[in-house]
Amino acid sequence: MGGKRIRPLLVLLGCNVFTDKIEQAIYPSIALEVFHNFTLLHDDIMDNSEKRRNRPTVHMKWNQNVAILSGDAMLIKSYELLSRGPADCLQQLLGLFSKSAIEVCEGQQYDMDFENEREVTPEQYIRMIELKTAIIIATALKMGSILAGAPKKDADLMYEFGKNLGIAFQLQDDLLDVYANPSLFGKVTGNDIISNKKTFLLIQAIILASGNVKKELKRWLSLKKFNSKEKIFAIKKIYDKLQIKDLTMKCINSYHQQGLGLLENVNIDDSRKTELIAFTQTLLHRQK
Amino acid sequence: MGGKRIRPLLVLLGCNVFTDKIEQAIYPSIALEVFHNFTLLHDDIMDNSEKRRNRPTVHMKWNQNVAILSGDAMLIKSYELLSRGPADCLQQLLGLFSKSAIEVCEGQQYDMDFENEREVTPEQYIRMIELKTAIIIATALKMGSILAGAPKKDADLMYEFGKNLGIAFQLQDDLLDVYANPSLFGKVTGNDIISNKKTFLLIQAIILASGNVKKELKRWLSLKKFNSKEKIFAIKKIYDKLQIKDLTMKCINSYHQQGLGLLENVNIDDSRKTELIAFTQTLLHRQK
Repeated sequence: MGGKRIRPLLVLLGCNVFTDKIEQAIYPSIALEVFHNFTLLHDDIMDNSEKRRNRPTVHMKWNQNVAILSGDAMLIKSYELLSRGPADCLQQLLGLFSKSAIEVCEGQQYDMDFENEREVTPEQYIRMIELKTAIIIATALKMGSILAGAPKKDADLMYEFGKNLGIAFQLQDDLLDVYANPSLFGKVTGNDIISNKKTFLLIQAIILASGNVKKELKRWLSLKKFNSKEKIFAIKKIYDKLQIKDLTMKCINSYHQQGLGLLENVNIDDSRKTELIAFTQTLLHRQK
Repeated sequence: MGGKRIRPLLVLLGCNVFTDKIEQAIYPSIALEVFHNFTLLHDDIMDNSEKRRNRPTVHMKWNQNVAILSGDAMLIKSYELLSRGPADCLQQLLGLFSKSAIEVCEGQQYDMDFENEREVTPEQYIRMIELKTAIIIATALKMGSILAGAPKKDADLMYEFGKNLGIAFQLQDDLLDVYANPSLFGKVTGNDIISNKKTFLLIQAIILASGNVKKELKRWLSLKKFNSKEKIFAIKKIYDKLQIKDLTMKCINSYHQQGLGLLENVNIDDSRKTELIAFTQTLLHRQK
């Protein structure tokens, strides 16, 4: 069913920063993609999502039990793929992979908790997407570095670069839900608005709104029945008034720059970093 | 919450057959116990079970999403524990563990499929419990053997011994649901009878029943409303008439003996096998 396959690409690109020999990174990179798809499968059950990549989710097409069990099998499969990596760094990879995987679960729990919380601060939100999304981007790059035999200090810098990149990536995702071209995006836009999802955009809007704009925002958030198109249009208008798009883009850029600063410190010739940097550019300027 | 912790015990006992040095098997043995508890957690969601070990199941006490996510975290944790085992046999352990874990998922799917199937043969049933239960018992013993550095031939014999033991163990479990002393068993007996679960006992009864007994059995199986105690009493009476208990015990004994025959071929002094043999005896004569 496709998907962008960003995580395995980042394993290979991370490895390629340090060495031209990247074959040993192939199975571990696939492991990470299968892991990512496992999280989507189980998240879709928990979030009651009907569609994924424009097609019915597993629990909608089959049933919930099949979706739980298929996800379990995919998680096992991801470890099986990881274990096909080179034996000499297997223990290190497993430790990293497992630690990150647990953190993704924590992130998902926070995400669900936020639904029932009245107020979520931007800091709490950033921490949640750090766990749920950024850690795996970071892990992809560190796995690649370990597989290349990079020094620990450089592998750790790659991890931190990845974390900043991952946060920027998720903020971009929040932005795309509102501002993407639907035919490119591969899913209907405005879903987050319809469901009152506490994205970075909404959290900022709640903070910045005042007077009539605040009243208007609160009214839309509390309405049980509404016309979806009207709600999306109205919330977008509020976002425009508060310059939320601009604010979010500045925030994305800030994380991106911070990440690039860390990548600069990685102790290898700059020419080896150009592919990775180019890829992160396309990632953060994507329209889908 | 307890549990019998049979699987980690079997890892240690399996290791101890070949060596007195069993410390290196401790983390992998815990990994298997955590894995087993993960399967219980997710199975309880899928089977809609309200109780486990006499206490509310996770999805009843919290909610379904917490149960899915906690199970996921436990599966990850089991691999994390496994990765703390000795590095020199990690790849081998991971391959075995993952293969078996996938087979457990397959077994669970068959088990659920059987609910909607009109006829399940004894052979299909044995295959299902082989996947769902016996493979992990077999894996426990093989993991222990690998951790002891046993020759491949012996580790494989331990696996096959474990598979036979595991099938016998599950048949014993089926028997206990009907004939156990509830205060010892730790759960209410007769659950399988109430839910028409296609256990070894019921499958055999359907095959062996004829005439009025067959009619009576079919009547109870098709009743939508019934008094639980009456149904348990009636089905038990049918089992007694058809000597199902005796038949099942013979079958248990046959798998047990077949297993012991394989264990005999393991190339090590018999004195090293006595603990393991004694443990399997208590396992198959347990009242709970």
